[in-house]
Amino acid sequence: MASIFTRIIEGDIPSYKVHEDDKFIAFLDINPLKSGHTLVVPKEEIDYIFDLPEDLLGEILLFSKEVARKIEAVIECERVGLSVIGLEVPHVHVHLIPMNSISDMNFARPKLNLSSEFMADLAQKIKNA
Amino acid sequence: MASIFTRIIEGDIPSYKVHEDDKFIAFLDINPLKSGHTLVVPKEEIDYIFDLPEDLLGEILLFSKEVARKIEAVIECERVGLSVIGLEVPHVHVHLIPMNSISDMNFARPKLNLSSEFMADLAQKIKNA
Repeated sequence: MASIFTRIIEGDIPSYKVHEDDKFIAFLDINPLKSGHTLVVPKEEIDYIFDLPEDLLGEILLFSKEVARKIEAVIECERVGLSVIGLEVPHVHVHLIPMNSISDMNFARPKLNLSSEFMADLAQKIKNA
Repeated sequence: MASIFTRIIEGDIPSYKVHEDDKFIAFLDINPLKSGHTLVVPKEEIDYIFDLPEDLLGEILLFSKEVARKIEAVIECERVGLSVIGLEVPHVHVHLIPMNSISDMNFARPKLNLSSEFMADLAQKIKNA
């Protein structure tokens, strides 16, 4: 069965998209740790980051950098942190999280609940940055 | 002033080294979240991952993969997670953490205190894997 991210990539499931090229897509995490928390996903459905083919493993941080620069332009933060855990959805995803302190990267914290209007507006701002 | 990681790279400060090439080094984190928690560091001293030159940003996960495969060979884990936070030492470092649950990646948890003998033996095993 296609992963939820493949279904987002194929347009079956809507997302707050912020960036895309032929190999990767970036959209807002709908259960964000921080406003601006974004996921970078390769379009090829592969479970584990270290199983990505060499070209995708080499390019995923170059694409992530383009997204991080956009996030930095919109969200007040010291820097954008990144994390790859991958125990939940079996499709590689890099979490990009605007950070001001180490606790902003703590996945055990309660997630934020942001309105659809807020998320749509934020995605548009990041996309246009 | 040289970062603590540059001083490790230059051999001024000892480390439990597990892998190295001309651009990157990997050594055990001396305040590990899990046994096998390893840091991947570019030899060029740059503070923020998204300020790395394109070649290093493209290659850091390829080098990290070589290290992750070694960790997987030695430490029982579901997969190796990665995280880049970088608010403490101003020199890029990728945390590679053998994971069985999401809580293994929680940097707010107390760090382990492992003996020098244990760390030296573990580094040797990972290096040889």
